[in-house]
Amino acid sequence: MKKFEHGGNVYEGKAPDGGWLDFSANINPLGPPESAMQAIETHLRDIAHYPEPGSVRLKKAIAEAYGVPQEQIVVGNGAAELFYLICSVYRPESVAVPVPSFSDYERAAHAVDADVWPLPLLLPQDGMPGHSLPDEDVVGRADCVMLGNPNNPTGDLFTKKDMVELIELCEEHGTLLVVDESFLDFLQDRGEYSVMDLVRGRDSLFVVRSLTKFYALPGLRLGFAVVPEEDCERIESAKDVWNVNVLAQEAGLAALRDREYQKKTWDWLQEERSFMSKALRKLPGVEVFEPSVNFVFCRLESKALLHRVAKAMKKRGILIRDCGNYTGIPRGGYLRVAVRRREENMLLLQHLQDVLREEMGR
Amino acid sequence: MKKFEHGGNVYEGKAPDGGWLDFSANINPLGPPESAMQAIETHLRDIAHYPEPGSVRLKKAIAEAYGVPQEQIVVGNGAAELFYLICSVYRPESVAVPVPSFSDYERAAHAVDADVWPLPLLLPQDGMPGHSLPDEDVVGRADCVMLGNPNNPTGDLFTKKDMVELIELCEEHGTLLVVDESFLDFLQDRGEYSVMDLVRGRDSLFVVRSLTKFYALPGLRLGFAVVPEEDCERIESAKDVWNVNVLAQEAGLAALRDREYQKKTWDWLQEERSFMSKALRKLPGVEVFEPSVNFVFCRLESKALLHRVAKAMKKRGILIRDCGNYTGIPRGGYLRVAVRRREENMLLLQHLQDVLREEMGR
Repeated sequence: MKKFEHGGNVYEGKAPDGGWLDFSANINPLGPPESAMQAIETHLRDIAHYPEPGSVRLKKAIAEAYGVPQEQIVVGNGAAELFYLICSVYRPESVAVPVPSFSDYERAAHAVDADVWPLPLLLPQDGMPGHSLPDEDVVGRADCVMLGNPNNPTGDLFTKKDMVELIELCEEHGTLLVVDESFLDFLQDRGEYSVMDLVRGRDSLFVVRSLTKFYALPGLRLGFAVVPEEDCERIESAKDVWNVNVLAQEAGLAALRDREYQKKTWDWLQEERSFMSKALRKLPGVEVFEPSVNFVFCRLESKALLHRVAKAMKKRGILIRDCGNYTGIPRGGYLRVAVRRREENMLLLQHLQDVLREEMGR
Repeated sequence: MKKFEHGGNVYEGKAPDGGWLDFSANINPLGPPESAMQAIETHLRDIAHYPEPGSVRLKKAIAEAYGVPQEQIVVGNGAAELFYLICSVYRPESVAVPVPSFSDYERAAHAVDADVWPLPLLLPQDGMPGHSLPDEDVVGRADCVMLGNPNNPTGDLFTKKDMVELIELCEEHGTLLVVDESFLDFLQDRGEYSVMDLVRGRDSLFVVRSLTKFYALPGLRLGFAVVPEEDCERIESAKDVWNVNVLAQEAGLAALRDREYQKKTWDWLQEERSFMSKALRKLPGVEVFEPSVNFVFCRLESKALLHRVAKAMKKRGILIRDCGNYTGIPRGGYLRVAVRRREENMLLLQHLQDVLREEMGR
């Protein structure tokens, strides 16, 4: 299990007074929308009733918010549940996944005994992201391709044009393509990248979305998939109808309507992403990959150094994501930090600078 | 989908002022323990963090409360999730289920394309429960047997002695036996019936428990399975590690410690179960099956009559469970009502009497 450890485990170890400052999970630092918190408080007593079966009202709201037909939507207990469900229903024998990427693609594939084919995104030579999508050789042989756009933790972001090529290739070969767009909401121009609208009329394109990163609700669990209509029914019938708890349903309904929160998040990220990217570059020995959304992928000289740095940061109450346990991580100390609010980012930068100086001086 | 409709869908149709009086779902009418509500309110802001991976603290609490090793516990997003997970991991080709029973046994089996073998509990001749456990003929041929103890909706309750015979038979034939004990917490002497302690040392016994019926938290989702240690790891790896939301974790931790609530529930049910059973028997044309836990299974003369009765009750703001859509329901109008608090039970009885008189007089 150790291998698949994730960021954001604030339960491990004794938290400092005031709690961890968590840069290890990529959650919107503005916190859950007040509209969602109010909805939760209003519906708190509804936990004594079953959730609405099949999350019908939420499906309607998602359909409206994203402009996709309701009949194509499966709502999940987090996006993660959907990867397992998809694998369990379609039972691919081989799944191609970029590496490094969200470990649950690989884990979900393993759960159905599929062979996992890693597609290296990072070239060990130069440490720069490869930006390469799977080619015909891969698509022609694999039963399924899973792909994050943008990819976590590297931040690789593929344009819709690039994606269309891959989609057509998969369609041609009957290869199931699962695109994880869980971080796309962070981009105001998400329409330039999302392929959700291309699901209709195709057989082999599934798109998965998390609603808990952008809306800061990971503890409640909420995600959805956009799939061809026939597949929707098939996936629905492979799970119980109450998989989304009543508070997640209500929070989701409120959050999707909250334009003000969405705008506030886009404005915040516009500013902070480039601030963080620039500031991190100025730190000694830190190589920075240009971020696309709300996290920055970086590289230190060595795994050993990173390990010491992460440990020292933790002592200071700050969690960063040591990416050493990702499949496909080459030599070097790769790490990921979330983009948070300015004052928090300043804290991270100050402490990271101090720690780097101490640890590199050893 | 219609076929698998459940009770407790308070979202369907326009609720009356003051909400539905819901006798269609078998939830503890005392409502969630105040201790659990307090825990939820205290941890409301924690929804901005991921849940603890693998629900480790909750596993520990369950292990203590039920006296089973922590290493045998899988915590689920409701008990229902666990039936699907078990089927998806073990992929039985044939599953024997008593009928009528909780429809998700059948649905979970269908999800992996298993043949479903119905074991009729109700004999159409006399309408009395058969109280028959699967015999060697069934156990020898099926890959898996799923069974509720007590069974929902009939209330059939099997003693531990009877269960041990079945368990040994399954062990002998290598047949996976999944016992759903989701309602056993309602019995103070649950130890006389539960087979949880027999999982250890065997290969083929899995026990599933809901925590949301007894603790009135169905909207939050929470359940667990007790399985052999090796299977625990296998099932865990077939789902993501965050399947139990943070509020369900906290509510569960508080509820399991709440001895006062447990005692209050046992005292309430002791009284109300026999009150309801006796009072229902006095209504015209109602045949009552002796209840074992917090619901009563009954029979009216015909499906048509029941249908009219349920409709008229709904008009009066009261939901009862028309069991007509259960697999294996023979002729006659079978229904299920939950046992609620005295004043609510009185309301049900009064309205049911009025409605029966009206509808039977037609």
